[in-house]
Amino acid sequence: MTPKIAAFLCDSAPATPCLVLDVDRVETNYRRLKAALPLARVYYAVKANPAAPILERLTGLGSSFDAASWEEVQSCLEAGARPDAISFGNTVKKVSAIQAAYAAGVRMFAFDSEPELKKLAQHAPGAKVYCRILVENKGAEWPLSRKFGCEVEMARDLMILARDWGLDPYGISFHVGSQQTTTGAYQAAIARVAMVFSDLREAGVKLRMVNLGGGYPVRYRAEVPEIGEFGDAIMGAMVQHFGNDLPEMLIEPGRFMVGDAGVVSAEVVLVSRKGADDPVRWVYLDIGRFGGLAETEGEAIKYAFRTPHDGTREGPVTIAGPTCDSTDTLYEKSNYRLPLALECGDRVELMATGAYVTSYAAQSFNGFKPLAEHYI
Amino acid sequence: MTPKIAAFLCDSAPATPCLVLDVDRVETNYRRLKAALPLARVYYAVKANPAAPILERLTGLGSSFDAASWEEVQSCLEAGARPDAISFGNTVKKVSAIQAAYAAGVRMFAFDSEPELKKLAQHAPGAKVYCRILVENKGAEWPLSRKFGCEVEMARDLMILARDWGLDPYGISFHVGSQQTTTGAYQAAIARVAMVFSDLREAGVKLRMVNLGGGYPVRYRAEVPEIGEFGDAIMGAMVQHFGNDLPEMLIEPGRFMVGDAGVVSAEVVLVSRKGADDPVRWVYLDIGRFGGLAETEGEAIKYAFRTPHDGTREGPVTIAGPTCDSTDTLYEKSNYRLPLALECGDRVELMATGAYVTSYAAQSFNGFKPLAEHYI
Repeated sequence: MTPKIAAFLCDSAPATPCLVLDVDRVETNYRRLKAALPLARVYYAVKANPAAPILERLTGLGSSFDAASWEEVQSCLEAGARPDAISFGNTVKKVSAIQAAYAAGVRMFAFDSEPELKKLAQHAPGAKVYCRILVENKGAEWPLSRKFGCEVEMARDLMILARDWGLDPYGISFHVGSQQTTTGAYQAAIARVAMVFSDLREAGVKLRMVNLGGGYPVRYRAEVPEIGEFGDAIMGAMVQHFGNDLPEMLIEPGRFMVGDAGVVSAEVVLVSRKGADDPVRWVYLDIGRFGGLAETEGEAIKYAFRTPHDGTREGPVTIAGPTCDSTDTLYEKSNYRLPLALECGDRVELMATGAYVTSYAAQSFNGFKPLAEHYI
Repeated sequence: MTPKIAAFLCDSAPATPCLVLDVDRVETNYRRLKAALPLARVYYAVKANPAAPILERLTGLGSSFDAASWEEVQSCLEAGARPDAISFGNTVKKVSAIQAAYAAGVRMFAFDSEPELKKLAQHAPGAKVYCRILVENKGAEWPLSRKFGCEVEMARDLMILARDWGLDPYGISFHVGSQQTTTGAYQAAIARVAMVFSDLREAGVKLRMVNLGGGYPVRYRAEVPEIGEFGDAIMGAMVQHFGNDLPEMLIEPGRFMVGDAGVVSAEVVLVSRKGADDPVRWVYLDIGRFGGLAETEGEAIKYAFRTPHDGTREGPVTIAGPTCDSTDTLYEKSNYRLPLALECGDRVELMATGAYVTSYAAQSFNGFKPLAEHYI
């Protein structure tokens, strides 16, 4: 928690649940990334947190943006971003969204299939396009399965098609999975990309860009490698595979940029036991999986907690949200322990919750409104 | 799909994604329930779909309501419900919510722990209270784990405490899990409740109510038992355990009341393959898990689809939502097949999606707004 957030919580005691996010910390993270990968252009993954104060600060710093929808493209433009600083990174787009983005001046689009490429050829003629390939997500705490990306053989054929259809065959993207804690995942992916580059050069198509995606991890309960280690691993692999003919490099950080800039402040609604002798207490908060903590699904992302009783004796707990849905349980198997003194009405903080929280919040599940947001 | 919904979709072709719900069908379902369990009072589980047209129609029919939050209590009151027709059924409530509901005239509250009971004694003096007990959820497609309810021994002790603290020890509730397809689950639970009744009678506390919860299933892809079978099984068990000293009976249907009254209309955004020879197509819709189809988590609830090409040749598919999150995949392992002719721009209908969809929708995940709602 940054000193600014601590002071805000202490002075304002805002109604819970809410997110408090320190925009200065976002700037720090942007600079850390630039230092770790000075050759890469940063496309902030807007979906991680699309709040205007974040987009405006990043625009001022010269960041570019990775948008998942026409609505996110609009948010970037409203925050002052130039259309040529926006990549429409979703490989699944409605025709109307492509048309709107193209009309607004966006000229860079992702795809991973022939039908999507055809849409782009028709509705975004001449645009730069990049194909997303499937790569291993081992080591990621929020892996991305096979939903996005295609096999490398298909990527090669599609890039040739892109050229034939009047598009600009710009490059290749991949995503190693979010909260990726293994630098080797990037190295293996870069090797695959280099193969596609070389295959296509033989076919007369000269690609110019590698989009390294996001995935850079944030510290939750466990330590993660420093961003510099990822930078070194990535640059090492790039030089190894491309030598001194380095293509442009893009990165799409989301979690890394905003995760540790935010804290969710919540209230304990109930602490109870299921039976008189049950050693495990149930701690119910006023925010849960449907209130924004969606990434606790399968206990994937393990947030750290702060309570007013930290340092006193602890016991095992199951932590749950406030709704009548029992899937709205955050942590049952991850060995969480909280102070025995914790009780109804206490305020607790969930650390590093600046990413992938606010926009996930259900509009009104069980009648509960989405959490408030404070950008300071 | 009711004829009224079919006509509306055909005549209006509303923008997708949207829910179209036939309120007459809700009335039919209410009457079916009353016919199956004539002795039970119906408390509609508002969380299943809190739309005003539904609450107003049910108020007119004489239904009561199970509210999960103060906000849901307010929705019921605004729809014309009398406060004595509202049960505050969440066992986890903020003090401020108890106070507000009590001030509005609500006099029936659920609990499952001593700290919650203490809140009720302080802030809802004299109210009717019922204790939720843990029961088996075997046979439920959306089981409720141990989040709600306590062991029967604890329930007995707490009901005595309720009396001592000036509350009205009204009864016992349980929930066999949502989309419960086994009538035996209710019978086993009723046997446990009867045990608590008898233990408490010996202790001088005469309970008067059994809250049978919800869980009554809706037909999705697979057949489910008729509601009459549940009615018969429940009444059989009640008579077996309580003889001619039957307590009041309450039921809390949510899914059963509104599930098959609604249809989600969606658009196919992309149909693609991951490799040229991949037999499985990926079908991406403009609604997914974060757009309201939250109950497809773990492929628990298996919605049936209608497409414009039904009856033509089919092939295997994976079905996913439109966001850049790969957990936003609906069905990968449930052997869905859709017509080979299906393509980008086609409209499809997801059947029996009137329950647990609209209020789950994320406020703005990836920039996508919640689905529109049409009550006809």
